[in-house]
Amino acid sequence: MGLTVAVTGASGYAGGELLRLLAAHPELDVTTVTAASSAGTPLAATHPHLAAAPGLSDLVLRGTDPAELAGHDVVFLAMPHGQSAAVARQLEGSSALVVDLGADHRLSDAGKWESYYGGDHAGTWPYGLPELAGQRDALRSARRIAAPGCYPTSVALGLAPLLAAGLVEPTDVVVVAASGTSGAGRSAKVGLLGSEVMGAVTAYKAGGAHQHTPEMEQTLGAVAGAPVTLSFTPLLAPMPRGILATSTAVLKPGVTTAQLRAAMQAAYADELFVTLLPEGAWPTTAATAGSNSAHLQVAADTHAGRAVVTVAIDNLGKGAAGQALQCANIALGLPEATGLPVVGVAP
Amino acid sequence: MGLTVAVTGASGYAGGELLRLLAAHPELDVTTVTAASSAGTPLAATHPHLAAAPGLSDLVLRGTDPAELAGHDVVFLAMPHGQSAAVARQLEGSSALVVDLGADHRLSDAGKWESYYGGDHAGTWPYGLPELAGQRDALRSARRIAAPGCYPTSVALGLAPLLAAGLVEPTDVVVVAASGTSGAGRSAKVGLLGSEVMGAVTAYKAGGAHQHTPEMEQTLGAVAGAPVTLSFTPLLAPMPRGILATSTAVLKPGVTTAQLRAAMQAAYADELFVTLLPEGAWPTTAATAGSNSAHLQVAADTHAGRAVVTVAIDNLGKGAAGQALQCANIALGLPEATGLPVVGVAP
Amino acid sequence: MGLTVAVTGASGYAGGELLRLLAAHPELDVTTVTAASSAGTPLAATHPHLAAAPGLSDLVLRGTDPAELAGHDVVFLAMPHGQSAAVARQLEGSSALVVDLGADHRLSDAGKWESYYGGDHAGTWPYGLPELAGQRDALRSARRIAAPGCYPTSVALGLAPLLAAGLVEPTDVVVVAASGTSGAGRSAKVGLLGSEVMGAVTAYKAGGAHQHTPEMEQTLGAVAGAPVTLSFTPLLAPMPRGILATSTAVLKPGVTTAQLRAAMQAAYADELFVTLLPEGAWPTTAATAGSNSAHLQVAADTHAGRAVVTVAIDNLGKGAAGQALQCANIALGLPEATGLPVVGVAP
Amino acid sequence: MGLTVAVTGASGYAGGELLRLLAAHPELDVTTVTAASSAGTPLAATHPHLAAAPGLSDLVLRGTDPAELAGHDVVFLAMPHGQSAAVARQLEGSSALVVDLGADHRLSDAGKWESYYGGDHAGTWPYGLPELAGQRDALRSARRIAAPGCYPTSVALGLAPLLAAGLVEPTDVVVVAASGTSGAGRSAKVGLLGSEVMGAVTAYKAGGAHQHTPEMEQTLGAVAGAPVTLSFTPLLAPMPRGILATSTAVLKPGVTTAQLRAAMQAAYADELFVTLLPEGAWPTTAATAGSNSAHLQVAADTHAGRAVVTVAIDNLGKGAAGQALQCANIALGLPEATGLPVVGVAP
Repeated sequence: MGLTVAVTGASGYAGGELLRLLAAHPELDVTTVTAASSAGTPLAATHPHLAAAPGLSDLVLRGTDPAELAGHDVVFLAMPHGQSAAVARQLEGSSALVVDLGADHRLSDAGKWESYYGGDHAGTWPYGLPELAGQRDALRSARRIAAPGCYPTSVALGLAPLLAAGLVEPTDVVVVAASGTSGAGRSAKVGLLGSEVMGAVTAYKAGGAHQHTPEMEQTLGAVAGAPVTLSFTPLLAPMPRGILATSTAVLKPGVTTAQLRAAMQAAYADELFVTLLPEGAWPTTAATAGSNSAHLQVAADTHAGRAVVTVAIDNLGKGAAGQALQCANIALGLPEATGLPVVGVAP
Repeated sequence: MGLTVAVTGASGYAGGELLRLLAAHPELDVTTVTAASSAGTPLAATHPHLAAAPGLSDLVLRGTDPAELAGHDVVFLAMPHGQSAAVARQLEGSSALVVDLGADHRLSDAGKWESYYGGDHAGTWPYGLPELAGQRDALRSARRIAAPGCYPTSVALGLAPLLAAGLVEPTDVVVVAASGTSGAGRSAKVGLLGSEVMGAVTAYKAGGAHQHTPEMEQTLGAVAGAPVTLSFTPLLAPMPRGILATSTAVLKPGVTTAQLRAAMQAAYADELFVTLLPEGAWPTTAATAGSNSAHLQVAADTHAGRAVVTVAIDNLGKGAAGQALQCANIALGLPEATGLPVVGVAP
Repeated sequence: MGLTVAVTGASGYAGGELLRLLAAHPELDVTTVTAASSAGTPLAATHPHLAAAPGLSDLVLRGTDPAELAGHDVVFLAMPHGQSAAVARQLEGSSALVVDLGADHRLSDAGKWESYYGGDHAGTWPYGLPELAGQRDALRSARRIAAPGCYPTSVALGLAPLLAAGLVEPTDVVVVAASGTSGAGRSAKVGLLGSEVMGAVTAYKAGGAHQHTPEMEQTLGAVAGAPVTLSFTPLLAPMPRGILATSTAVLKPGVTTAQLRAAMQAAYADELFVTLLPEGAWPTTAATAGSNSAHLQVAADTHAGRAVVTVAIDNLGKGAAGQALQCANIALGLPEATGLPVVGVAP
Repeated sequence: MGLTVAVTGASGYAGGELLRLLAAHPELDVTTVTAASSAGTPLAATHPHLAAAPGLSDLVLRGTDPAELAGHDVVFLAMPHGQSAAVARQLEGSSALVVDLGADHRLSDAGKWESYYGGDHAGTWPYGLPELAGQRDALRSARRIAAPGCYPTSVALGLAPLLAAGLVEPTDVVVVAASGTSGAGRSAKVGLLGSEVMGAVTAYKAGGAHQHTPEMEQTLGAVAGAPVTLSFTPLLAPMPRGILATSTAVLKPGVTTAQLRAAMQAAYADELFVTLLPEGAWPTTAATAGSNSAHLQVAADTHAGRAVVTVAIDNLGKGAAGQALQCANIALGLPEATGLPVVGVAP
């Protein structure tokens, strides 16, 4: 018998992916799954891919109540943003490791929380992006972890090494990132119907409105040691999973592609889940689907005076469930890659 | 009997779309279709959607020879870039209206042609983007027209009014545009197989390498009256058709969303094929599929200091065949919208 | 000013497609659009593809009330099955042409209506499949028309000529048909989210449960002059539009592919919208998308003793809105193909 | 150090999937990968999803020569049908376990091989479908295994228990199965381009022409103890992976859904990779993507007199690479599920 795990928000896409990963994890045993709106439903009726999952196929979704969550070694909160703070408060004093896949404990600036998300600020937990310099050590002793957003993960992995090395300017960063539709969640909305999204790339929350903007600026600002301002345009792409983030930043004078690549290589040489592709190969989301991997490429466009970084991840993998599990492995003292695929399911 | 039309490159996607439109055009009769590599093949064997097309289903593809093209009222050149110049030379002296859907006659700077496309520069023809200020009149008397590229159409429609009105800076424009796979042409390549592209958003020719960059800079520079520098990242998206272009430019001090919208409205108030969406509605490629329409939205992101413009078109419609036919209608003195759908095929 | 048209259920997919076609129809002017749940919404806010549709973009959805529908020359009912009967009753005595895209007036057997759809049987209207032998004439004088279902259209077009010619047995017909997701309607359901349907072919209502089964048996039984029994399995396929129906029936002794093809050719030689493909070419839904066309192929599998017929249509075109408009053209004495595309939007 | 493995045809989709699975297999070490046409290419340049695969990312594709294959404990042949027999002959006398993912060693009837595949018959190896009654034991001692085709796997799993229990007739079986595009292989053909396949369901090799027909009849005939005749129509569906097979067979008099389900449950009660879904839940390919699982449902359509069975698998998983690895595990005496995911990657 391994450590016991509860997953809240288990009926959603991040929850479903986390359960897929946990089904194959040798040290963690899922004993409780909760989902307010689906309480009483067999797990496999909600998630057909779990129909034969060892240890999971007999579970029934329960309400997200303190009594249900008590007594587990690990609790993953996989709920829509704004909902995990209340559950986290119920777990105050618990010795369980709590990993929040939602946004509630990511931002340190209460004012930004209020203006982008609304409601009271719940406080700040250690940020679960292990590949950021210094971050892995901070996670080893954490009992509360705020897993990053999907877009911020892709943007931070791409730009952090360049900002840390002083190769690009922190101001006037421009990001356009295309996400698969699972990033929009599993609630039934006409705009997310297959009939609407297939054959369509669609912009949304453009012009500075997306709530991940302050998270990106916070993470990159800490790395740069200076305020970062960033224009962010998210796109919905006709695929279930994946993020392809294109980030550009103004090059410092004379910086070359070779220097940009060297900074990337130095940052990620020892990282199993972050791979700088060979020169000339640009990332594709398909290669990372179902995995916890990020694929990167970078070039100096000297004509335009910008560094161009593209990063591919699975928004449900390195962008959500995979990363949350990676953080949990670290905090639990397990081998960091336990239960985490490196290889994407392609084609 | 209407005017006679020949289409070269008829076996490709732009050619196939042009033939679809021409099948319903009341004044133009396609009498010749050519495609070097498929000569001898019945047209409908190459394009199953034309199986019952009135006037087309009996045609057989022929070689792209001068004798085949002679004697038509209109010749559309729908070949890969670098191939139309030779055919155009064979038509020298012909009184036919010749519309080139390829790149060969778009750039005025021979050096840029050579560095981005290679080979000799074929000269410059009137640029077939009727909605650009002053351009429609130039096309009325033209007998040779260079139809714009798909990406440049989407970017020019979005940024030209803002640059013309002096609301944004001409330098440091950043464009990220996602294209459907038909934009990559119809040649059999492993990287374009359905198994590879479905489920995948992929960057390509990033870092300043894409050949449409100088065309965008040329068009926008003329509008702005100043050199434009532009960082361009193209993405391949898992859909057959459509471009969603996100263009950002540095806002002049104090410029508001209302001012940006007013400039757009002034530019396109009388344009049937270009529509500024209501405030808050962001474009989706699906709404323009199969049509000659462009849908636009713009906002001032004052936090980041950038105007954000997104434009949706059908890369084969307003981005290629539709636009070429619109130009032909103008040059032939026909009603401009003849045979051109305004409404996209959605869902 | 042409004839005035009202469309109920205008916020759905069939309604949206009908409006796309009507926007380009030279004799019909849409003056009223209704949708119970969206009353008060601008039409283009519900259907972005109609953003610039001539004559439509200023319309606002209204409630489906008798007062709204009174006084039109043509009324199209594009509502979910079970809802049009009540509206039809409100139009009793009206001289308007009423075309019902729903199922309410298709079945002649009240018992089958009750067992497959539930509720009271609303009666039977002339069946709007003009290519069935004798059916076109019946439609010329009709003022009420029941447009066929999408699946029944594809199956009837494929099997009727073979049954009429006595080349196959009427018993033990087996049909498996894959539909695009728009066939499942536009209501917000988790199972129809893009994230769920992309990458997925899914069976549903299999084992004899689908409500289109009695409609198929009724139509084919009338053609065969004998009861037809049919096993029907519908599949949901990851595309917005299209039906690919595979129908097999037991071959009469000695029947050859040539005989099957000859029967098809005889039936459809003069039909603009039904095309038997050249031998060896199998239909693809993509070639019919956005059109009113059906593409057919047939072969005798003498090893298995079955005729195999595959038919591709656009479920929203020949399977719904296109066919309804074709019927209206006939009943109004207009050229039958007015406003109806023959060529699909491919790729 | 585990057992050493060579994979031929490593540049294809089945090869790529096999390598993904092997990368996570604790007992098997891939030391050689071959692909005639790509010899000299780094493996990760051909398969971007393997960019960071432990133990694989440094491999380079080599020619498929006897010297390259000699000395391995296990050799997987993942080549197009007709190509593995020659390689198998080179391995004659080798003590290696050889698993052929191709068709060359599946058929026992030389005449059927010649008429469906052409060329000389290579002989028959034990058939690698462990869930067929008695088959697992036969595989334990095998050193040569013919892994089944993707379509035959889905059809055999669905119909074998019903035929074995005598609940359906062996004659006049009708199968329609939709496959993702990876089933068509990775060669560059225009008809397989993303632009062609997205938005399209397409029939192919219908009318009895598909080469998997005799394999299905052979497997089912052995189970039934009587000749099986089967009409098979394959469809290409717009998704990279997955097969949804609908098989119908004539019900013996009085047979009920409950009896059909009982036969299925009895056959698969102890099978980890084959799951009969709860009554009323129909399979979807998405739930099995990336896994070695098969999901089944069955119903008695008493009106039509047929049993309807639908089966979902991943054509590259249980339909190819997963099954081959499962067979290898059995023959090597390893736990059968080693390295094989039970849970699909959904959404």
